[in-house]
Amino acid sequence: MAESSTTSMEPRRRGRRKARESDARTLIVAAASKEFLAQGYDAASMRAIARRAEVDPALVHHYFDDKAELFAEAMQLPARPDLIVRSALQGPRDSIGVNLVTAALTVVESGKNRERIIGLIRTALGHDFAATMLRQFLVSELMGRIATELEVDDGDFRANAVASQIVGLFIVRYGVKAEPFASASIEEVARRIGPVIQWH
Amino acid sequence: MAESSTTSMEPRRRGRRKARESDARTLIVAAASKEFLAQGYDAASMRAIARRAEVDPALVHHYFDDKAELFAEAMQLPARPDLIVRSALQGPRDSIGVNLVTAALTVVESGKNRERIIGLIRTALGHDFAATMLRQFLVSELMGRIATELEVDDGDFRANAVASQIVGLFIVRYGVKAEPFASASIEEVARRIGPVIQWH
Repeated sequence: MAESSTTSMEPRRRGRRKARESDARTLIVAAASKEFLAQGYDAASMRAIARRAEVDPALVHHYFDDKAELFAEAMQLPARPDLIVRSALQGPRDSIGVNLVTAALTVVESGKNRERIIGLIRTALGHDFAATMLRQFLVSELMGRIATELEVDDGDFRANAVASQIVGLFIVRYGVKAEPFASASIEEVARRIGPVIQWH
Repeated sequence: MAESSTTSMEPRRRGRRKARESDARTLIVAAASKEFLAQGYDAASMRAIARRAEVDPALVHHYFDDKAELFAEAMQLPARPDLIVRSALQGPRDSIGVNLVTAALTVVESGKNRERIIGLIRTALGHDFAATMLRQFLVSELMGRIATELEVDDGDFRANAVASQIVGLFIVRYGVKAEPFASASIEEVARRIGPVIQWH
């Protein structure tokens, strides 16, 4: 999960130094938004973002581990989907399916993320540049990561299949709100969908 | 599949009677659109649509078998999803999964339906009345039908799961256009996704 921004959360009395730091961070996030919009997710680089923010590249790396984290912050993603996938894939092989579903639903259902995830899916299905950017992020950071971690020949096929099951689950549970999926517990849904993810 | 509308397709020289018939049909579809918008899918009835169109209910039934057909026409759905589901479910039990995926992809990939299906998913995820209506249609005519046909205790859970896998597949293949799903043949995708549907 991304660090919460220090701009609005920190009390002012922490003094000038803190304010300067949060200014730099805000500046970097703003520059990242512009760079992603100008270049798309794939072509944008941490270096170019630093240049745009007129800060040293080291400062960008001080605040953000990688491009995925900056993207999550710039797009105000409700969570770091790449980290959820990574941690689920690092668990025991025979519970990847259930773990992935449980982790994904748990994150989405904290805070106001149910609405947010559906908004993001709608955006990703649009025609504008934000749609292209989100799709690039999904393909590179999620499907690409799953495919690599699986270490099988047809990992890319399987990653597509996993992603399709998860996004469809979001739509049925949070978008269409069809019963019984909409009201079922996370455990129940994971029990139903987990084995499919596992099979993929 | 819905009959093609006679309003724009028929040459004028077929005469006045034909023109009157297509007028009535057009009138009914227009009335249906208004009735669905006013009442939602579930509460709208063939009888109320006839009243709104100021025609005899028998005439509505002459042109349209049921509410699902009128809805498909009023919403300009690319196909009759309820019929696709029904015919796939009537085939042999052990090939329902592959048949359902094959039928769904085949219909979507005829004509300009790839764009259309993504537009419809976006609409269904929105906040307006069209969204509610589309969701009611999906739940009643698709998930409800699957649940009933399966004739098992937890058919409603299974129907939700099937729907989530199919809508997710549409998004990955036509919306996000992730490879290899975007370019794979229908047969290949059905081979990958069919067994999951079968399992659900």
